[in-house]
Amino acid sequence: MHVPIYTADRQIWRNGQLGEGARLIPEETAIALTYNGGTYAVMMGTPQDLPDFAIGFSLSEGIVQSSEEIETLEIVELDDGIELRMWLKSSSAELVNERRRYIAGPTGCGICGVESIAEAVRPAAVVPKGRIFTPSEIIAAMVSIAVLQQINIQTRATHAAAFWTPAHGIVALREDVGRHNALDKLAGALAQAAIPAADGMVLLTSRISVEMVQKTAAIGAPLMVAVSAPTALAVRTAEAAGITLAAIARSDGFEIFTHPERIAVAQATGVAEATHVA
Amino acid sequence: MHVPIYTADRQIWRNGQLGEGARLIPEETAIALTYNGGTYAVMMGTPQDLPDFAIGFSLSEGIVQSSEEIETLEIVELDDGIELRMWLKSSSAELVNERRRYIAGPTGCGICGVESIAEAVRPAAVVPKGRIFTPSEIIAAMVSIAVLQQINIQTRATHAAAFWTPAHGIVALREDVGRHNALDKLAGALAQAAIPAADGMVLLTSRISVEMVQKTAAIGAPLMVAVSAPTALAVRTAEAAGITLAAIARSDGFEIFTHPERIAVAQATGVAEATHVA
Repeated sequence: MHVPIYTADRQIWRNGQLGEGARLIPEETAIALTYNGGTYAVMMGTPQDLPDFAIGFSLSEGIVQSSEEIETLEIVELDDGIELRMWLKSSSAELVNERRRYIAGPTGCGICGVESIAEAVRPAAVVPKGRIFTPSEIIAAMVSIAVLQQINIQTRATHAAAFWTPAHGIVALREDVGRHNALDKLAGALAQAAIPAADGMVLLTSRISVEMVQKTAAIGAPLMVAVSAPTALAVRTAEAAGITLAAIARSDGFEIFTHPERIAVAQATGVAEATHVA
Repeated sequence: MHVPIYTADRQIWRNGQLGEGARLIPEETAIALTYNGGTYAVMMGTPQDLPDFAIGFSLSEGIVQSSEEIETLEIVELDDGIELRMWLKSSSAELVNERRRYIAGPTGCGICGVESIAEAVRPAAVVPKGRIFTPSEIIAAMVSIAVLQQINIQTRATHAAAFWTPAHGIVALREDVGRHNALDKLAGALAQAAIPAADGMVLLTSRISVEMVQKTAAIGAPLMVAVSAPTALAVRTAEAAGITLAAIARSDGFEIFTHPERIAVAQATGVAEATHVA
């Protein structure tokens, strides 16, 4: 049985003194995602919330358009890892074989460089217009996630992805040693929660690379907020996908890199802030 | 021409005030690595030190055993990215086709889950015994890298991997938005520097996942030191590879998770510290 947290014995050298004792560290497990008997990808991730991961990864990669297309999901514990064994309804099975040829991970399979790059940076879906958020909503949402990061509270070494709406607060929060996996797990949780993605914002404890934007676009969320900085390609991709990208988010504020029209900043200093909530 | 740093215009919301201005953020570019005309992988990375990346990636992945086996390397600027186009000497060309079948990235190509996982967590090479390091050497080495992180000084958003020896200090430091890429670039730089890896330590600004240990083992460095925490799988892999893994390294000390015999901690409080340097 794979568990997400491991107790490691280690020595501590601090201020010229040698100590000993245990430290909690996150587990990292090889997780194979297989469809109809063939491996699509092996991701190194935290062995928790694996059904969410299977569903979210399948949606993010465009292997299925809806979790309904996954006919069965079996979680198979192996000596060296875990297999998420999925069988797709017949209409989706052809698609996965096609996608496998033009695989998006870091890995291509013999196709040329130009084709491989085009697949890796393929345009993200354009998100719905969604609602307008106030700065205080964004700051309150970001501040609320720390106490929910159960693995990170113990290990200080995992990332989280969460989804917040004005009506529900934090709808779901998922953790992983890999920030991409945390966001895929969140996508899987949301697919089962039946809450419209256009109503809320994706919250990330990490930096924003292009893949985080592509996954947020696949979720259909109009706003993403991260603790750390975006890359330039992430900014360009968010711009094209119609996503509002806010980053360097702390308790005192944030920076807005794309589509500022969704954030009611100009008015937020006045008393009329609440009227801008759609 | 791809450049590593991009100037982004953005709005700033801090302490209830709206501001505007530019922020420097790191570029992220799709980089295809092709061998003899076929793509092996597409990595999202910082477009800098690309010859080092091509050589280091090829070594880390076991595609070549020596940079000599790469007959030609051409850097091809494409609209959406960069292709690192390599042609291998004929003896290595067969190997890459074989490796491509059992690809280690996150992505397999139709092989089953068990095989794919076995490939992803394949045992790392066992490193040489190397020398013994004192705590003050480790702390001094870690402290010395900050001023060398040219992209990070401007963007606060990139990782670095560096190599330090007692004789040379920092031999090389490489940066990337991806910590794996930074370490691959370092591996490529070291392959050309002709300094024995057993003489020094790998320094990382990031967390340590299993792939960071696998790459350090491929370099042949006996000691790796990181700012942040390791995963449990990274610890097990370092243990098996004979690597001393030190983490949570700050200016006041560090924690030792594996093979503490290479760090002269017990004696370091005494006056005899220097005598323990091999």
